[in-house]
Amino acid sequence: MPARKNSLQTDQIRSAVDAVVAEVEVIESFGKVIDHIAELSDLQINRFGICVVTADGDVVTGGEADHPFPIQSISKVFALTMALEAHGDDVWKRVGREPSGDPFNSIIDLERMKGVPRNPFINAGALVVVDMLLDREKPRHEDVAAFLAEHIGSDEFDVDPEIFDKEAKGGYTNRALANLAKSFDNFHHEVDDVLKVYVRQCAIALTCRQLALAGRYLMLAPPGGRKKTSIEEAHRVRRINSLMLTCGQYDGAGDFAYRVGLPAKSGVGGGILAVVPHVASIAVWSPGLDDNGNSLLGTIALERLSERLGWSVFGNLPPKDV
Amino acid sequence: MPARKNSLQTDQIRSAVDAVVAEVEVIESFGKVIDHIAELSDLQINRFGICVVTADGDVVTGGEADHPFPIQSISKVFALTMALEAHGDDVWKRVGREPSGDPFNSIIDLERMKGVPRNPFINAGALVVVDMLLDREKPRHEDVAAFLAEHIGSDEFDVDPEIFDKEAKGGYTNRALANLAKSFDNFHHEVDDVLKVYVRQCAIALTCRQLALAGRYLMLAPPGGRKKTSIEEAHRVRRINSLMLTCGQYDGAGDFAYRVGLPAKSGVGGGILAVVPHVASIAVWSPGLDDNGNSLLGTIALERLSERLGWSVFGNLPPKDV
Amino acid sequence: MPARKNSLQTDQIRSAVDAVVAEVEVIESFGKVIDHIAELSDLQINRFGICVVTADGDVVTGGEADHPFPIQSISKVFALTMALEAHGDDVWKRVGREPSGDPFNSIIDLERMKGVPRNPFINAGALVVVDMLLDREKPRHEDVAAFLAEHIGSDEFDVDPEIFDKEAKGGYTNRALANLAKSFDNFHHEVDDVLKVYVRQCAIALTCRQLALAGRYLMLAPPGGRKKTSIEEAHRVRRINSLMLTCGQYDGAGDFAYRVGLPAKSGVGGGILAVVPHVASIAVWSPGLDDNGNSLLGTIALERLSERLGWSVFGNLPPKDV
Amino acid sequence: MPARKNSLQTDQIRSAVDAVVAEVEVIESFGKVIDHIAELSDLQINRFGICVVTADGDVVTGGEADHPFPIQSISKVFALTMALEAHGDDVWKRVGREPSGDPFNSIIDLERMKGVPRNPFINAGALVVVDMLLDREKPRHEDVAAFLAEHIGSDEFDVDPEIFDKEAKGGYTNRALANLAKSFDNFHHEVDDVLKVYVRQCAIALTCRQLALAGRYLMLAPPGGRKKTSIEEAHRVRRINSLMLTCGQYDGAGDFAYRVGLPAKSGVGGGILAVVPHVASIAVWSPGLDDNGNSLLGTIALERLSERLGWSVFGNLPPKDV
Repeated sequence: MPARKNSLQTDQIRSAVDAVVAEVEVIESFGKVIDHIAELSDLQINRFGICVVTADGDVVTGGEADHPFPIQSISKVFALTMALEAHGDDVWKRVGREPSGDPFNSIIDLERMKGVPRNPFINAGALVVVDMLLDREKPRHEDVAAFLAEHIGSDEFDVDPEIFDKEAKGGYTNRALANLAKSFDNFHHEVDDVLKVYVRQCAIALTCRQLALAGRYLMLAPPGGRKKTSIEEAHRVRRINSLMLTCGQYDGAGDFAYRVGLPAKSGVGGGILAVVPHVASIAVWSPGLDDNGNSLLGTIALERLSERLGWSVFGNLPPKDV
Repeated sequence: MPARKNSLQTDQIRSAVDAVVAEVEVIESFGKVIDHIAELSDLQINRFGICVVTADGDVVTGGEADHPFPIQSISKVFALTMALEAHGDDVWKRVGREPSGDPFNSIIDLERMKGVPRNPFINAGALVVVDMLLDREKPRHEDVAAFLAEHIGSDEFDVDPEIFDKEAKGGYTNRALANLAKSFDNFHHEVDDVLKVYVRQCAIALTCRQLALAGRYLMLAPPGGRKKTSIEEAHRVRRINSLMLTCGQYDGAGDFAYRVGLPAKSGVGGGILAVVPHVASIAVWSPGLDDNGNSLLGTIALERLSERLGWSVFGNLPPKDV
Repeated sequence: MPARKNSLQTDQIRSAVDAVVAEVEVIESFGKVIDHIAELSDLQINRFGICVVTADGDVVTGGEADHPFPIQSISKVFALTMALEAHGDDVWKRVGREPSGDPFNSIIDLERMKGVPRNPFINAGALVVVDMLLDREKPRHEDVAAFLAEHIGSDEFDVDPEIFDKEAKGGYTNRALANLAKSFDNFHHEVDDVLKVYVRQCAIALTCRQLALAGRYLMLAPPGGRKKTSIEEAHRVRRINSLMLTCGQYDGAGDFAYRVGLPAKSGVGGGILAVVPHVASIAVWSPGLDDNGNSLLGTIALERLSERLGWSVFGNLPPKDV
Repeated sequence: MPARKNSLQTDQIRSAVDAVVAEVEVIESFGKVIDHIAELSDLQINRFGICVVTADGDVVTGGEADHPFPIQSISKVFALTMALEAHGDDVWKRVGREPSGDPFNSIIDLERMKGVPRNPFINAGALVVVDMLLDREKPRHEDVAAFLAEHIGSDEFDVDPEIFDKEAKGGYTNRALANLAKSFDNFHHEVDDVLKVYVRQCAIALTCRQLALAGRYLMLAPPGGRKKTSIEEAHRVRRINSLMLTCGQYDGAGDFAYRVGLPAKSGVGGGILAVVPHVASIAVWSPGLDDNGNSLLGTIALERLSERLGWSVFGNLPPKDV
């Protein structure tokens, strides 16, 4: 008894992607690139890429879908998945599941909650998640890179060395967050060790194509599809998707939910991973960010695509052509 | 190009509702009834009702679907709808659209945001919304009761006089919130006048059947359905649905999103209104509340129903019977 | 075994006051007058008055020592004295005694402290103190005006009607604070009743001469002096003086303590009452306020006077003329 | 024109000290010793020592005045003095001077103030002060130990190795505070380097006799006394004394000011340094702490001594024996 029609013709998706790429190309407001990423030699703010992978495995691309960019906070989704695979619901003893009214790196919230971060997508929560990953004796995947390699089906991607170096040196807010969690006994490993792993996973550079492939598990196999999904995996993915929708866009989650209507996670590198459950995994990239730290063109592209294909989970407009 | 299949057989829904009612009946943990509601003479904590109205107009009920209860905070959804109809996007100049990390009646957040409540479903936001309703010279509906009468198609419901009296006398936190908003010039009318209207709409007593009928506009007419939906209305409803999902359950929005996976708004009277876009409008009621102030049995019922019918917007489990 | 020499020659004080008046006259930076006080018809920002009353009863004046001004928050000192006379240490069950790191009218602190204001000199605390005054069945003084009349030895002063009218109409922040305290059951009377009394006492207009006379009880009779001080009264005054020093100047208490070195309470009307225990009661007035809401010229005058007469409780400079 | 009589007979002080020691001995409520200090092998909670050094240089002791204890936060006074000597008023660009309403190690306040700690006696402020000490190219004193050696006139004291080891290993809250200050560019040196210096100065163990001698500079030479005080030094000391009075006792500053009425700084090691300007430097020690982290018996002893000798800066009781 499927709730979603999973047989959207791939060519319908392709024509929607083409239209969106054309629309995005003429937009001349790009937002801002964050400082240490702006220094990357080859960066131009108007770059844009998109890739959609369907439940049936079809891949539709547009723009610079094969240009790598650091995934940054999108890595939090994969780390959380790994932590849930390893620790199950014990994860929720150490990190909350509710949206936060404070900015993504706010330390106030962490003190008020006695060292338990509000959710796994604010920085404090992501650091505790990585701390949990280091708890595992025999991890299924050694790290996020290994997790990604399996899900993409290729390890042809790198940690961006410039990004890694720059972020490894600073990160004082993250160090403050980690030490505060540790002061409340919610951090088991050395802060420096955890931060190194954290910075490394943030600096992984993927293309839109790779990111959309990596996100396929989040759409869940369509009912009747080829891949078998266990109940456990379905529960896990549903949890992650709901967190992406309520907490995935920093302080702009509410507006993003309205405009795009899909579970998604953004990163300050300009990438966004979005999921249409049972239907598609989408990755977009454009380095200019809006005031909330989400890719400005990327968000517009997802908004247009979702509208054209009737993908918002909150209800869709009457079809234009009827 | 619809994303949702809207042709679920009504008898499938009926059998799911029957199953859920049976399951709920044997649960023996009911949560707590809040004080001044607990004093109502006829209240028994194990009462439960449910009503589902489909996009095609079929009505499926279970339990005490015709027992009236005060809708309390669910009225915020209807007041917001009226404010958006009257003022359009100007609403967002006076109230935010983002989830709040603070409890629903927290005054801290309001001071930090200089009198602009975080969203229209926390008390401060709902008070500002009612203040906006009083701004209108010629309102389309005089008040929430009139709005409900039109959408239900009947005015056979009342304001619960006991609830109204009790809440009109106290409400010091709400008075504090309203005065604080007024100190920041974000409140145009007399605090007492607004509070009276606010308390009145909270005290409206509806049955599950009436509430589900009232919520029909939130599912949007199914693509190809009989009723025409304007683009403007579709945008408005999508906005409301996204707010219900991200902010509709006080501090339990994250967990509710995971468990039920539907836009919904709860009230301390024990009612919850939930929406399956393009598919169904659902009302449940049971007066015992969980720690976050949401109906305990009502949430369980919605969770089970959503799971049985594959309605979660975050992806659904593999069908059990396939 | 007195710690303070109380025999400073009155003519030394007079010559110091004269010197300070001359110094203040040439200062050309006056700060800002708050809005609704600035509208008073006769107000000029460079006005300045001072009066010192010695332990022996001598009165030394300078500038416009007989021009009345609204005492505003200075009334909090007298209301607190009355509350301590009526309720003794029970006062501290309903209001704290510690400095606040938040601005004087911050509601955040009040919510965090569950309705118990941090100290009696922030607005929330002063409102609770007035609420306590209304608890008394047979008050020794009917209100602050009666208290002042006794201590000044004359009732030739008025409530400024313009100030009273303006402040009675608004005061939304105070209403918010009072309602929030009431929501925590730390407010026994009607908010409107308490606010009326509060606004009235703030609008009392005294001259520097009257204010300094009113403050005589705060210096405590000098050891060996004519007036007998009870142990109870000495304890009460010591408590008030310590609160004035730690909390008497809004968010500028730390700097004021350093610069002036005396217990003091300021009001946004431009007045400051300062105490040299066992030695003198001082009132200054100048309507221009610094960024913390304290009289700019008044603070400078007290700083210079304290320095010239070696009155700082934190140690004094080597005498200039030795 | 001195405000304070500085010729209290030393035998009056001696008899008051004897009386206080006798009174303290019969008290049987000792407070609590903090964990890692409680583990010290020789610690007994009822130990007590006191030393008063007069302006004339007389030394009066009582109890275990020669038993060393870690000075802990009292070191913040000496570090601040050194920073003011080295950087003058530039110190106040990096740390505030106002009391804090939050507990002494609260990180919330630091974020709200954008990395500028509220005052130099909360931990964040003390860490920034130590960071400033490391800025100096040619420090007058290499560190707090050197400063103390000069002021005591002897270097016969040690850093407690047990305390140093225990505190050097943990300190996650301090690490969080330091990193947060660094994230706001208000920390110039490596966090680890600063923390090492900080922990070392906290672990210095002094006797009451040594501590009272070290604090002599805070009473300022009495007017007419032998030692010449520069205007600069007098200003510096007055600033420190005013900070000690308003911020020296964590969240108990208000109550301490009332009860004792003297500038003072406490440490969790159970020591308190208090100053009677122009009259005396006092050190007390007893390891049991009250709820605010101040020595319980030490505070009582200071309260009794201040009362007996009429030392409160807020006015004194009528003499009992006159």
